[in-house]
Amino acid sequence: MAYKTFTKEDYTAILDLINDNDRVLYQDAIQEEYGHDELGGTESLPDVVVLAASTADVSKVMTYAYENNIPVTARGAGTGLVGACVPIEHGILIDISKMDQILELDEDNLTLTVQPGVLLMTIGDYTAEHDLFFPPDPGEKSATIAGNIATNAGGMRAVKYGVTRDFVRELEVVLPTGKVVTFGGKVVKNSSGLDLKDLIIGSEGILGIITKAVLKLLPAPKKVISLLVPFPTLRQAIDTVPEIVRSENVPIAIEFMEQDVILDAEEYLGKKFPDHSADAYLLLRFDGNTDEEVEKAYQPVADLCLKQGAVDVFISDTQEREDSIWKARSAFLEAIKGSTTDMDELDTVVPRSKVNEMVAYFPEVSKEQGIRIKSFGHAGDGNLHAYMLKDDLSEAEFQKRMTKTMELVYEKAHNLGGLVSGEHGIGYAKKRYLKETMDPVNLELMRGIKKTFDPKNILNPNKVFDV
Amino acid sequence: MAYKTFTKEDYTAILDLINDNDRVLYQDAIQEEYGHDELGGTESLPDVVVLAASTADVSKVMTYAYENNIPVTARGAGTGLVGACVPIEHGILIDISKMDQILELDEDNLTLTVQPGVLLMTIGDYTAEHDLFFPPDPGEKSATIAGNIATNAGGMRAVKYGVTRDFVRELEVVLPTGKVVTFGGKVVKNSSGLDLKDLIIGSEGILGIITKAVLKLLPAPKKVISLLVPFPTLRQAIDTVPEIVRSENVPIAIEFMEQDVILDAEEYLGKKFPDHSADAYLLLRFDGNTDEEVEKAYQPVADLCLKQGAVDVFISDTQEREDSIWKARSAFLEAIKGSTTDMDELDTVVPRSKVNEMVAYFPEVSKEQGIRIKSFGHAGDGNLHAYMLKDDLSEAEFQKRMTKTMELVYEKAHNLGGLVSGEHGIGYAKKRYLKETMDPVNLELMRGIKKTFDPKNILNPNKVFDV
Repeated sequence: MAYKTFTKEDYTAILDLINDNDRVLYQDAIQEEYGHDELGGTESLPDVVVLAASTADVSKVMTYAYENNIPVTARGAGTGLVGACVPIEHGILIDISKMDQILELDEDNLTLTVQPGVLLMTIGDYTAEHDLFFPPDPGEKSATIAGNIATNAGGMRAVKYGVTRDFVRELEVVLPTGKVVTFGGKVVKNSSGLDLKDLIIGSEGILGIITKAVLKLLPAPKKVISLLVPFPTLRQAIDTVPEIVRSENVPIAIEFMEQDVILDAEEYLGKKFPDHSADAYLLLRFDGNTDEEVEKAYQPVADLCLKQGAVDVFISDTQEREDSIWKARSAFLEAIKGSTTDMDELDTVVPRSKVNEMVAYFPEVSKEQGIRIKSFGHAGDGNLHAYMLKDDLSEAEFQKRMTKTMELVYEKAHNLGGLVSGEHGIGYAKKRYLKETMDPVNLELMRGIKKTFDPKNILNPNKVFDV
Repeated sequence: MAYKTFTKEDYTAILDLINDNDRVLYQDAIQEEYGHDELGGTESLPDVVVLAASTADVSKVMTYAYENNIPVTARGAGTGLVGACVPIEHGILIDISKMDQILELDEDNLTLTVQPGVLLMTIGDYTAEHDLFFPPDPGEKSATIAGNIATNAGGMRAVKYGVTRDFVRELEVVLPTGKVVTFGGKVVKNSSGLDLKDLIIGSEGILGIITKAVLKLLPAPKKVISLLVPFPTLRQAIDTVPEIVRSENVPIAIEFMEQDVILDAEEYLGKKFPDHSADAYLLLRFDGNTDEEVEKAYQPVADLCLKQGAVDVFISDTQEREDSIWKARSAFLEAIKGSTTDMDELDTVVPRSKVNEMVAYFPEVSKEQGIRIKSFGHAGDGNLHAYMLKDDLSEAEFQKRMTKTMELVYEKAHNLGGLVSGEHGIGYAKKRYLKETMDPVNLELMRGIKKTFDPKNILNPNKVFDV
């Protein structure tokens, strides 16, 4: 697809539209960060960066780009891991991170209306002050809400509460034509035509730019308690998960972790975990409104774990212990990153019943391909994060082994009824794996939808699938 | 759009494909029922009816129709209310009601895999036997699961659990080309490309024919208790709803009803309701695993209702009372139907905070337009069912007044931030109201998606929107 080459005249025209020198960055003013996301790997700089302050800004710039056939990419906090916000075709990058206001708390409808650049941690703090909460809980709290919606982020409370998709009532979106539309509504039920709102959720910025979101909130549970449960083997730990989910008191989170990842986190944080003597752990979290209610929920699950061979059950019954365990859990990614020279990741999702087969495959493929792999993840929802570490491999050798490993892991996941991504998305980095594992008919439908929204293919081109 | 005229040769060709005389109905063998749905109003007979026994049947017939440009409509139990399953353009009607097998209960992944024609009541009985449950709970239990998915049916447990959309993991779909595809997976999280699964849910059979579904189940709560709460006025009853939703123990259902509807139901069932002395009622339902847990949930809500002016709180603490209340609630539609000569309905949905404004509008518009209106509905989720009754009006006069009333009510709902349909869908009957209240840009996107799936516009044409 041939795009217009971005020129000085385009810069001047956009500056005229925005009318604020500080919010249109050109040439040397464009920071290096705008060329990659959190994980790196995918790199390409935009020709111009627009720091949008309003929906009107986004719409005006998008309209200009549409009329002039210039590619546009939207970016939030840049915490993605698959290059979805990297402007592969250069052109205009619209940074929405300054659109960071909470617009309305509606306590009657239990909704929160936010601009796209509001951070997850801001939503967490704000709702807590009002005894409410927004359940989606990805590890990366400095991500923007629009980024979370664009990837349909899941996080650690998905076992009980579901994912981001389940907590979005309405979206305001700027289409590739520059038109501003609203999908969904501040309503609980909706059977009024095709579901455009859910099409935007998880679309990684290829169909429209999210400029406002109405989120669904819940009353905040007053008590939260976690159990750290050591098991002699990872297999025993994971075999216990379906039993837990089947029991009457579903935890909000069921994470698994192995000893080596805990040791990494301890070193990274300079703090001890409550226990690191066992090979494998389940980390369970329960919520409720009273101590008795939470205790009634976790007690049978603790007994169940012991019956299934758990060595012990550590209960984090103080806020301090609770914080320290989850701080360690949140640091896993950074800790693994710190333990090697470079890495790449995957976040495949498999049916809960296949988690054991999948995690047993990691050491196997690691040995076979000669590449160190660390994994941890959301055992309760089958979403596994695995990291392939460069260590002292040459760049060429790392790329070779890593690519082969990815291929094998995705093939395995596919054979187990799994999918490429549980929550990080496809972006640029995982495009070929989506293509290899998805029915071409499905991809063709996705291409048709993309064309309906973006006939000129100017919005975030080269992402998710090739058109 | 010019379709091929259906001929004897087409009938013979389809009979060859299905190879079973009893499953291909032609001419006189086509029962009158195939020409309308539960509510009637929209009427048109197909040229041929195929009683599909397998996905292969559906695919073969669809492929033939695609190659020969013959319109196709899918039908389940025919319990719809907006004519979505009526073959407006005649052609082939594929009846999936004989594809009624439960295929798999997967207790590790908590999923139930079903054929499209399985009835909601069958799913209810089957899951109960396994101490599991499928939360969506529309009043019409003899609907098929595919019909429920195609309209994104909501029902009475939506306040706590959500709607059908929230409980579908995977769909097998026959596309208008005849190709068989799978959307989603037996996974809890999914960020792998555009969300085609949610596009099918609520699409009323215009994008594809659902031939298999993997449903998400939950462990069944062991105890259910309902509160019937009389209020002096409807306004007071409904004003109490946001307070209840905001409290820490969310009921599974919050229904409102007025005295006259209760009296209709008593007459229809020949049974007394626990109370019918008040003008208006809230009906609340709570679930949990023990009597204590449920009591702890409802007690503060009962107190809250009394504080807000409730006259009394009746607790259905026996299974018998519980059954009798909900049996009456389920009979409202039939009871209202029985109280008049003919009727039409709407199921608009508004933000929860606007329910009072909406229900206050019904008597106003009723008086103004000279047409009797009865309403009841899901106060907890803003989904209101209103019925316009013909009584002794002439057909022409009824149509005139009813149409005007619908226009006014939909306009009012739109102005309150509401949408045309909460759970019944648009089908054929509500097309113009969707068109009048929806941004033309959204409709254009829907048309583009329809064209991507169904380039010849042969699958359920003339529904939801005009192409």
